[in-house]
Amino acid sequence: MDEPDLHPELVETATAIAEMEVRGAATIADAAARALEKQAQASDAATPVAFREELAAGARRLLDTRPTAVSLPNSLRYILRRTDGDTVEELRNAAIAGAQEFRDRLESAQDDLGAIGANRLQDGDTILFHCHSTDVLSCIRTAREQGTALSAIVKETRPRKQGHITAQQLQEIGVPVTLIVDGAAGRYLDEADHVFVGADSVTADGSVVNKIGTRQLAVTARERDTPIVVAAQTVKLDPTTLSGHTVEIEMRDEQEVISSSERNAIGDITVENPAFDVTPPRYVDAIVTERGQFPPESIVFLMRELFGEQAMEPWEAGN
Amino acid sequence: MDEPDLHPELVETATAIAEMEVRGAATIADAAARALEKQAQASDAATPVAFREELAAGARRLLDTRPTAVSLPNSLRYILRRTDGDTVEELRNAAIAGAQEFRDRLESAQDDLGAIGANRLQDGDTILFHCHSTDVLSCIRTAREQGTALSAIVKETRPRKQGHITAQQLQEIGVPVTLIVDGAAGRYLDEADHVFVGADSVTADGSVVNKIGTRQLAVTARERDTPIVVAAQTVKLDPTTLSGHTVEIEMRDEQEVISSSERNAIGDITVENPAFDVTPPRYVDAIVTERGQFPPESIVFLMRELFGEQAMEPWEAGN
Amino acid sequence: MDEPDLHPELVETATAIAEMEVRGAATIADAAARALEKQAQASDAATPVAFREELAAGARRLLDTRPTAVSLPNSLRYILRRTDGDTVEELRNAAIAGAQEFRDRLESAQDDLGAIGANRLQDGDTILFHCHSTDVLSCIRTAREQGTALSAIVKETRPRKQGHITAQQLQEIGVPVTLIVDGAAGRYLDEADHVFVGADSVTADGSVVNKIGTRQLAVTARERDTPIVVAAQTVKLDPTTLSGHTVEIEMRDEQEVISSSERNAIGDITVENPAFDVTPPRYVDAIVTERGQFPPESIVFLMRELFGEQAMEPWEAGN
Amino acid sequence: MDEPDLHPELVETATAIAEMEVRGAATIADAAARALEKQAQASDAATPVAFREELAAGARRLLDTRPTAVSLPNSLRYILRRTDGDTVEELRNAAIAGAQEFRDRLESAQDDLGAIGANRLQDGDTILFHCHSTDVLSCIRTAREQGTALSAIVKETRPRKQGHITAQQLQEIGVPVTLIVDGAAGRYLDEADHVFVGADSVTADGSVVNKIGTRQLAVTARERDTPIVVAAQTVKLDPTTLSGHTVEIEMRDEQEVISSSERNAIGDITVENPAFDVTPPRYVDAIVTERGQFPPESIVFLMRELFGEQAMEPWEAGN
Amino acid sequence: MDEPDLHPELVETATAIAEMEVRGAATIADAAARALEKQAQASDAATPVAFREELAAGARRLLDTRPTAVSLPNSLRYILRRTDGDTVEELRNAAIAGAQEFRDRLESAQDDLGAIGANRLQDGDTILFHCHSTDVLSCIRTAREQGTALSAIVKETRPRKQGHITAQQLQEIGVPVTLIVDGAAGRYLDEADHVFVGADSVTADGSVVNKIGTRQLAVTARERDTPIVVAAQTVKLDPTTLSGHTVEIEMRDEQEVISSSERNAIGDITVENPAFDVTPPRYVDAIVTERGQFPPESIVFLMRELFGEQAMEPWEAGN
Amino acid sequence: MDEPDLHPELVETATAIAEMEVRGAATIADAAARALEKQAQASDAATPVAFREELAAGARRLLDTRPTAVSLPNSLRYILRRTDGDTVEELRNAAIAGAQEFRDRLESAQDDLGAIGANRLQDGDTILFHCHSTDVLSCIRTAREQGTALSAIVKETRPRKQGHITAQQLQEIGVPVTLIVDGAAGRYLDEADHVFVGADSVTADGSVVNKIGTRQLAVTARERDTPIVVAAQTVKLDPTTLSGHTVEIEMRDEQEVISSSERNAIGDITVENPAFDVTPPRYVDAIVTERGQFPPESIVFLMRELFGEQAMEPWEAGN
Repeated sequence: MDEPDLHPELVETATAIAEMEVRGAATIADAAARALEKQAQASDAATPVAFREELAAGARRLLDTRPTAVSLPNSLRYILRRTDGDTVEELRNAAIAGAQEFRDRLESAQDDLGAIGANRLQDGDTILFHCHSTDVLSCIRTAREQGTALSAIVKETRPRKQGHITAQQLQEIGVPVTLIVDGAAGRYLDEADHVFVGADSVTADGSVVNKIGTRQLAVTARERDTPIVVAAQTVKLDPTTLSGHTVEIEMRDEQEVISSSERNAIGDITVENPAFDVTPPRYVDAIVTERGQFPPESIVFLMRELFGEQAMEPWEAGN
Repeated sequence: MDEPDLHPELVETATAIAEMEVRGAATIADAAARALEKQAQASDAATPVAFREELAAGARRLLDTRPTAVSLPNSLRYILRRTDGDTVEELRNAAIAGAQEFRDRLESAQDDLGAIGANRLQDGDTILFHCHSTDVLSCIRTAREQGTALSAIVKETRPRKQGHITAQQLQEIGVPVTLIVDGAAGRYLDEADHVFVGADSVTADGSVVNKIGTRQLAVTARERDTPIVVAAQTVKLDPTTLSGHTVEIEMRDEQEVISSSERNAIGDITVENPAFDVTPPRYVDAIVTERGQFPPESIVFLMRELFGEQAMEPWEAGN
Repeated sequence: MDEPDLHPELVETATAIAEMEVRGAATIADAAARALEKQAQASDAATPVAFREELAAGARRLLDTRPTAVSLPNSLRYILRRTDGDTVEELRNAAIAGAQEFRDRLESAQDDLGAIGANRLQDGDTILFHCHSTDVLSCIRTAREQGTALSAIVKETRPRKQGHITAQQLQEIGVPVTLIVDGAAGRYLDEADHVFVGADSVTADGSVVNKIGTRQLAVTARERDTPIVVAAQTVKLDPTTLSGHTVEIEMRDEQEVISSSERNAIGDITVENPAFDVTPPRYVDAIVTERGQFPPESIVFLMRELFGEQAMEPWEAGN
Repeated sequence: MDEPDLHPELVETATAIAEMEVRGAATIADAAARALEKQAQASDAATPVAFREELAAGARRLLDTRPTAVSLPNSLRYILRRTDGDTVEELRNAAIAGAQEFRDRLESAQDDLGAIGANRLQDGDTILFHCHSTDVLSCIRTAREQGTALSAIVKETRPRKQGHITAQQLQEIGVPVTLIVDGAAGRYLDEADHVFVGADSVTADGSVVNKIGTRQLAVTARERDTPIVVAAQTVKLDPTTLSGHTVEIEMRDEQEVISSSERNAIGDITVENPAFDVTPPRYVDAIVTERGQFPPESIVFLMRELFGEQAMEPWEAGN
Repeated sequence: MDEPDLHPELVETATAIAEMEVRGAATIADAAARALEKQAQASDAATPVAFREELAAGARRLLDTRPTAVSLPNSLRYILRRTDGDTVEELRNAAIAGAQEFRDRLESAQDDLGAIGANRLQDGDTILFHCHSTDVLSCIRTAREQGTALSAIVKETRPRKQGHITAQQLQEIGVPVTLIVDGAAGRYLDEADHVFVGADSVTADGSVVNKIGTRQLAVTARERDTPIVVAAQTVKLDPTTLSGHTVEIEMRDEQEVISSSERNAIGDITVENPAFDVTPPRYVDAIVTERGQFPPESIVFLMRELFGEQAMEPWEAGN
Repeated sequence: MDEPDLHPELVETATAIAEMEVRGAATIADAAARALEKQAQASDAATPVAFREELAAGARRLLDTRPTAVSLPNSLRYILRRTDGDTVEELRNAAIAGAQEFRDRLESAQDDLGAIGANRLQDGDTILFHCHSTDVLSCIRTAREQGTALSAIVKETRPRKQGHITAQQLQEIGVPVTLIVDGAAGRYLDEADHVFVGADSVTADGSVVNKIGTRQLAVTARERDTPIVVAAQTVKLDPTTLSGHTVEIEMRDEQEVISSSERNAIGDITVENPAFDVTPPRYVDAIVTERGQFPPESIVFLMRELFGEQAMEPWEAGN
């Protein structure tokens, strides 16, 4: 079977994502949903089968641009799973409604999540932060807007020191910050009422993939009985893990860890710079999403509800 | 009572220590023992009481130079506890013998400790290192001299990145090194057969005071069941903790953590830079000293054996 | 918009709840469901929108009587979430059906729960009890009716010694009781096959809010590997925690802890008397409800199923 | 009410199961579904009520053959829960469709499960095995077919040494095997990247009932932080546990443990040979089913989805 | 052999102890030492053997008065172990010196212990207390005399509410007290920097026998990582446990737990009131004695040093 | 320097040990002590130096027979460490006294140890046993002789099923035995009040080297809070571990695990049969020796007391 014709705007969007003109998990997900909606609106497919295949082909084109992202396929899964009907018109309407629902929810997701996370915080609490996460910051910002007084301990988060960004944004919204090196977290956990971290993705077995250093922090926090909260929008849930897939950890440039001159001075060594690590669910107290907070062990049911049971991807042939 | 006259060489040594011309735990301990020996040799005290008081006064002068060091008072305790006898001559001989014994043991301590630590290592082992410790390196060096093939994972150890020194010295003796950021240790512990760290001091309750980050590493290593070995000469044992004293943690300059310009860009934040943290004995498998290896829970009896029961310091009046 | 007229029986019920004439979690929930049903039956709303708003107003009036209860809003959520339809008649029927279903289930809930909990018990088992819970007693009563021989260890449960009530009710149904002080539980856990406790409420992250002392007991029971079972009807599930709200712990009168005369004899001290504490899910083996038993980590999905996703309360304007 | 007439094929199937001509969890479940389908096809019931009762009677007859199996009642539950409709014809069609869906899924379940489990495995991994499970083998077989190089450590699994079967099947598909006694697992866990075990059944509170020795292995694996994966088709989920029922552990013949002659030589001792033990969910990382992988704490929701809420069994009178 | 004549003062002391005129661990130990000293001074034994037997007989007489005390036999062991010499005169002098040394140390023991415990405390610390212990109070009193500002959380400690005594004495020395019921400790541990408890006795395997409730508190404190300190003079060390003896736990009158009238109202129940429980060493951070602080795992060597290796008691025949 | 002449009886003993005519840890140690005593008695060394060298040479000859035993070198260390004096006569007497003391203690060691272990047991206790140990049996035998009623759960202990020997010996002394497979221990620990195991050797860091399966059992016993007691005479303490040496684990014949025919039927697999494993001190509650019971973390000080500090072996040249 020939590949169906794709709408020029979808093709254009695919190119923009591929060439990194469109960036950021939420922005990409939104663009993909908009492109699929456009394809559905403009489709002149003669049969429900043809319509479905056209949408699947559009989804495949978009997916090819970034094979390892999580938000992009989730956007497509959300819409295609909801594209149900007996006629082309019903399918078209369902696809458009699904795309709009997804985009609406996405638009308010960070605010909704922030409101939920803020509810966990009480006046006078001290929070320990690792790395930088806009989802985490949304919780703090909402709490501040509600007048909650908070203090922060911020790990610098080597190698890229995104803790500096977190520190700056916190102090801008009136949260006094104490900056520490990563190794000092063990010492400062006694002063913290909560640990807040973001997530790169969350897996079906409840593990949290996040910036390198999270696992160690979570293990130590549990040993101290300090609750650890993960703030992550549902587009971060990775349904491929439902079928056992493990998340591949990106190895980044060693120059983030050590400059060439320092490196040369030391001699012939290897430098490894994994971007993320994996924290098992038993070290996480709650995952805060825009749909509510969940123990990590049950997040798989939210994943199935939103993105399907995942026996087969909705864009695969024959679906 | 007037302070007894002190020998010029002792006074000179005290000055050299105070002015940091004499540096390093072992070097200071050696100089202090030599100074006390000189004082004992040259003493013209008429009575045993006067002789004892003269030595105690010498000890006090030396102690005043560095009130927070551990090796300096241990050197003095070692000698004074062994200064026993009924006549000035017996006391003089005992003091000289004590000083020589202390210095002899000190001279070979790092090698002896290295030989013991090396015995724990087997061909093909991978070791994870935190910070830089000459005691730890002595273990590795001895193992290498015995032909043991080893691999290393080295944490950079922020803020001062002493891991770079460790990395360099390891690769010079033929140990392949993988350098990682501190937060990555949780991910690399699965590949490690041992964790080796040094100590700034060891307390009577078996806690290990060491470079910031040690506690977190030890907690995570225990969670993975990777043995954690502390290499520390007995001059690092802190007998004041036997009487309940806690170790004060030095707060160092924030510029080690963040440059002024980065700091100013972020805005009004606090930066804290504690030099050390405290690891409870339940996270340590063995403390390797030049006198053998011990579980941390029993090191207090080695401390008492070497440096006394510590109800009262031997240089205190009326002792 | 004006507030719609409320049915006199609903207003009367609200007054009775507010004035504590109607008391007890289940009794209040039943009365509220009955009142809402009456409102639905009698409504002469002209449009679906008006009908919905009338029910929401009724719900709000009932809620205002006891802002911190859990069963009251759950009763209203259950009905309003099921009030679906395109016409006033459909809505009316749905509301009435929802109210009746809720009340039917509530009526048999404690018996159903008791039957499930009884299934966990085997002839000859010894159970350790904390405080007094009719849900817990229902499990034991059912087991006894099935002829299961059981023994009990009962903590007195200071400050109010509700353990005395538990002891009395247990011995009345033929369960031999050993009464102990609260601190003795650690010693008697070795003789217990199960720990059974009730709950004041259960949160979305699987935590159990229950009589002060529960957390300590659960931590110790886990250390001994004695299973800890929470018996709690689903009206105890608190859906507001799904959006991150934490449960406020009531501080009760200090005279429950110490009499004025004892207090005066001691001098100027503070007495604190929190009614409840919070046990994290990792210390609980199962939550037994009338809908089955669940690991605490998955109870959030039962909560959503019964009472909605909770992004917005069903009685809020614009819903 | 008289028992309805049962179809001869159903009666024949019941006899074959009772007489152990039909054996194996999946084979039994398939035969039962086929028999119920036949009964539905051939029914000449005049009313929906009569049709339902006829199917329930058929289910009861099949159940009586093996009161303790798990897969048999699950087969019946699956079909009966889906037998919905207003007319006999609708009910018949629903029953047939349910039976076919169940049998289709069952047929591919082991392959689907194998594909999911294989996704967890990476080139070069070493896996530790306890007992013999075709579900576990399916994971390894799929991974091998995908070209993944694996190594195996196999516990012999006393008393019946099913480890020998596992060892043979693994080496046949190119997995190098190291066979050890059961007690050696603690020593070999350091070399394992995963532990894979099957299950006899899985309970609503997330516990895994499996061959004796599993609990001990899982506790030790968690202490070493080696992930433990349970491979179990959904027919192994036991919905009766949802209502609190505990799984009875079969005690097998002592001659599996010790021969009569050895026994007599020892003298008057008791020999106990329990077939299974129970592993709590906190020692299991994931349960791999043909519907995806799940944390054990959330498997109860898969159980409810497939087999119903279990307040009352679908074959009970009045249902 | 006839029993040797015992000195009238020794006999008198024995009577006074037996009749509870002499009470309290330290007071009894002091009286016994004084009596044995008197016996040694007055002895007219002709041979070293006779002298030893006379002292042993005196010891046995004193021991018979209170077979379960710990301080009384320790007093006798201390002296008899040090009664060494070749002549009656040497033995007499050694016995007298031993008795005086013991009594001197005992006299200052609580102050010495207090000074050591006070060293663990820092300005602003909050301490959680269980029961009442003069050794614990000595630590707090010394800290207060040094000007350290402290806060207290005091468990009432059912059944006898000795927490009230602790509360009163703390507030008298300027420590603000919050009194709570025993079950609330789990909730208040987050606010505590230390837990301080006393001991009834300490065993060779490092276990701490103390007021019922200690074990539960220690387990919970460890789970929160709050250090738990036991303050106990060395006369509390129980050398009989070195030879495997376990400590029998006294069961006290049930009327301490419940009044007769409450009891009768409940019906036919058993009330158990164990006075103490046993806390394993892994839940204790340090034991503070007047000889220094020790990890519980090494206290056995202090026990041997002070009271002998305990293969045979020094007062046994043939010793 | 020429090797000194060795006494014919010493040479003969060395041959007997080498040729396995003298077997068993205690028997070997006794023979070695007797041989060294003979050498000391018969020596005609002219100088103290020559005498010492003669004994050292005798020790070396004996050691060469079994380089990996523990009791043999301990026998020699015990004697040589006590061979002190200024003249040949003094040295000779000290050596003879040391040898006799060692042999006397060895002779009564198992009985003394048994008496201590028996003190831990109470009427009605159930004990779980792994493998077969005469030291463990001595504890049980003594308890039985004292009339203590005990029950036993005995693991068969693959591969050599020494549990059968334990079972037989226990039932002969009136202890009812339940025999189970090794994997069932996890299930039977709930019924056990103690776990008793022996030791092949005990290391300076408190680890226990014992029959394969011990570590797993100890980890599971700790998880259930069942105390685990190691019964081991002091000749099992391995002083070479004080200087960091690790214990090499013997790999035994695979035919103990699987017969050739079974092996061939399976195909090309590896069989590994390690004799022992290593249990860290944190999973052991007490080590019962003939010198008393000790926490494993402090056993190093008993080791030093009996066998020396181990910087250099007493039989090495120049010592």
